[in-house]
Amino acid sequence: MKPRLFTPGPTPVPEETLLELARPVMYHRAPESKAILAEVGEDLKYVFQTAQPVYTLTCSGTGGMEAAVASTLAAGEKAILCTAGRWGERWRGILKAFGVNVVAVEVPYGKAVTPEQLSNALAAHPDAKAVFATLSETSTGVGHDIEAFGKLVAKTDALLVVDGISGLAAMECRVDAWGIDVCVTGSQKALMLPPGLAFVSVSAKAWKKIDAMPPRGFYLDLRRYRTAWVEGPDTPFTPANTLIRAQRASLKRLRAEGLENLWARHARIAAACRAGVKAMGLQVFAERPNNALTVIAVPSGVDGTATLKRLEKNYGYKLADGQDKLKGKIWRLSHMGYTDAFDVIGALSALELVLLESGYKLEPGAGVAAFQRVYAGK
Amino acid sequence: MKPRLFTPGPTPVPEETLLELARPVMYHRAPESKAILAEVGEDLKYVFQTAQPVYTLTCSGTGGMEAAVASTLAAGEKAILCTAGRWGERWRGILKAFGVNVVAVEVPYGKAVTPEQLSNALAAHPDAKAVFATLSETSTGVGHDIEAFGKLVAKTDALLVVDGISGLAAMECRVDAWGIDVCVTGSQKALMLPPGLAFVSVSAKAWKKIDAMPPRGFYLDLRRYRTAWVEGPDTPFTPANTLIRAQRASLKRLRAEGLENLWARHARIAAACRAGVKAMGLQVFAERPNNALTVIAVPSGVDGTATLKRLEKNYGYKLADGQDKLKGKIWRLSHMGYTDAFDVIGALSALELVLLESGYKLEPGAGVAAFQRVYAGK
Repeated sequence: MKPRLFTPGPTPVPEETLLELARPVMYHRAPESKAILAEVGEDLKYVFQTAQPVYTLTCSGTGGMEAAVASTLAAGEKAILCTAGRWGERWRGILKAFGVNVVAVEVPYGKAVTPEQLSNALAAHPDAKAVFATLSETSTGVGHDIEAFGKLVAKTDALLVVDGISGLAAMECRVDAWGIDVCVTGSQKALMLPPGLAFVSVSAKAWKKIDAMPPRGFYLDLRRYRTAWVEGPDTPFTPANTLIRAQRASLKRLRAEGLENLWARHARIAAACRAGVKAMGLQVFAERPNNALTVIAVPSGVDGTATLKRLEKNYGYKLADGQDKLKGKIWRLSHMGYTDAFDVIGALSALELVLLESGYKLEPGAGVAAFQRVYAGK
Repeated sequence: MKPRLFTPGPTPVPEETLLELARPVMYHRAPESKAILAEVGEDLKYVFQTAQPVYTLTCSGTGGMEAAVASTLAAGEKAILCTAGRWGERWRGILKAFGVNVVAVEVPYGKAVTPEQLSNALAAHPDAKAVFATLSETSTGVGHDIEAFGKLVAKTDALLVVDGISGLAAMECRVDAWGIDVCVTGSQKALMLPPGLAFVSVSAKAWKKIDAMPPRGFYLDLRRYRTAWVEGPDTPFTPANTLIRAQRASLKRLRAEGLENLWARHARIAAACRAGVKAMGLQVFAERPNNALTVIAVPSGVDGTATLKRLEKNYGYKLADGQDKLKGKIWRLSHMGYTDAFDVIGALSALELVLLESGYKLEPGAGVAAFQRVYAGK
């Protein structure tokens, strides 16, 4: 059995990056370590499409999200939350923990918050200090129109804070051009590294707000990362430096492909995957699907959780189940990061087989053929 | 040139652990991942010498220290801080960031806070809610008598919170028997892993205090780790799961040696190292040295920083310089983790050579011979 990982984080890591992880550990304050940090920092600016430094935090994505909240907002301040799923709810959990007054723009799972909804919320709450949104809502497969959100928020004094954890580098996202004031991502998604690092960019507009705030917390205080970067480049606390060294290898791969080529390739794979899913008689769950993953609605009469277990046990393909109330109702198939068209064809093929074996009616080969047709542009 | 790492974190990582890091990434919510977490959890209980669960946080040691402060103390509450160096000052920085009223028991760098000093502070401040201390103060090489501190604090309602980051598993430390209420350590010291994980134990006495607190923060809130552990064993946020899998390998090595054997071996190496240093005509900087590292006072007339640079450039040995005001004044030579007697003999030999080359007067071989004599028990 050959195990294959299709969960929307962690995602497969390229072999040359894995081998970097097996190299001896370095002292994190040595000049060579600072040089690696500087190099990774430059590549991250490219990935984020920003001229601002991108800070590396040793924590998971949620730690990066908390850094964004704790550093920018005081208790009692108002924020607009665009939420379309579990990761929007993660923003809410953090905002509540920090005493922020949350105005939620909420849509049912599977739908996306529209720019019009955000526009109305901004008009109704001119005192909102920030807008929180999610680029790729991996719990449902929805993508948000962050470019449109950016245009709306830029007209106000509010900050646009985006969870780009599973979307950045899998779909178009231009931090500076779109006016994203704080953008957070993680290492274990499209950036092709194991979990353990979060990356955060901060705009000049956001720094102005942050610098007017009394300090709060310590480890996730973005000001400490700025200071260490200016004096270094360095990190304020011992970083997971073998992950950072390995990140360099994955970022080189990403640079070699080129960000726009990568976005286009992911878009092509995602479109082909959705066509394959539909040709199998299945439905795509997200109304506004994003290119990082395809979320499939489990058809009635099929046990979604048992199907995924068989898929893994019999064919080695590990897809992700729905979470919380969506458990058993959706299948989540990631195609971000170190995953190509042929990997996804294999996954659709295995899904076809396991569905056929359980008596579900479909035309063998319909899914992979449809994938192939769309991928070939025919 | 063969590079050799003697910094007091990161420390060398065993080959079998490095190779684990190069294995393909797993889904962190899979049953196999939870089984690894459970196994690592059991081994950590052994290392901490506690019957309580030990929680794994994805962050550096400072993140674990913040979790201890943020979870146990409200702003305005009083805490006694025992500080003997930079890492005691790290406690102070975090405590201040959380608005804690700090009563400092402070000694000059190179000295240790005595149990008598703590006893006096506890008598003078019966309203103190917690005592913060450092097992191994790596900035100076001092070790604290945590066992004695524990006996004093146990008589009060205060909690004993210990930074065991560079000491745990390098020197005797018994969390339950000594009455340590919150103990924090990190992956990159005696636990023989790269940086990226912190581990935290919490006593029943500490949980009582924590549960009476209003929640604060999110990512470093220890309650979330307890809930995930009880429901799992699991982590509340995506963990650095390849580090956790690799930690299993290092913990197996540690278990195979046995904790008391390991403490004894480190004590033997440390005693031999101190004898070697003295035989070279040098002074041990710490008045109450600990067994995780040896800190050497740079003799007058010698450029400490330049000597370390030559040591690395000519012989591949990477020791650590002093930090802040101790820069150039001390050399820090770690012997914790995956370092044995023969590694340390090599380091002393290289230090002898580089000192001889720079005109410093010493008897060639005096250091290594003295090491050998003490190590052999002669």
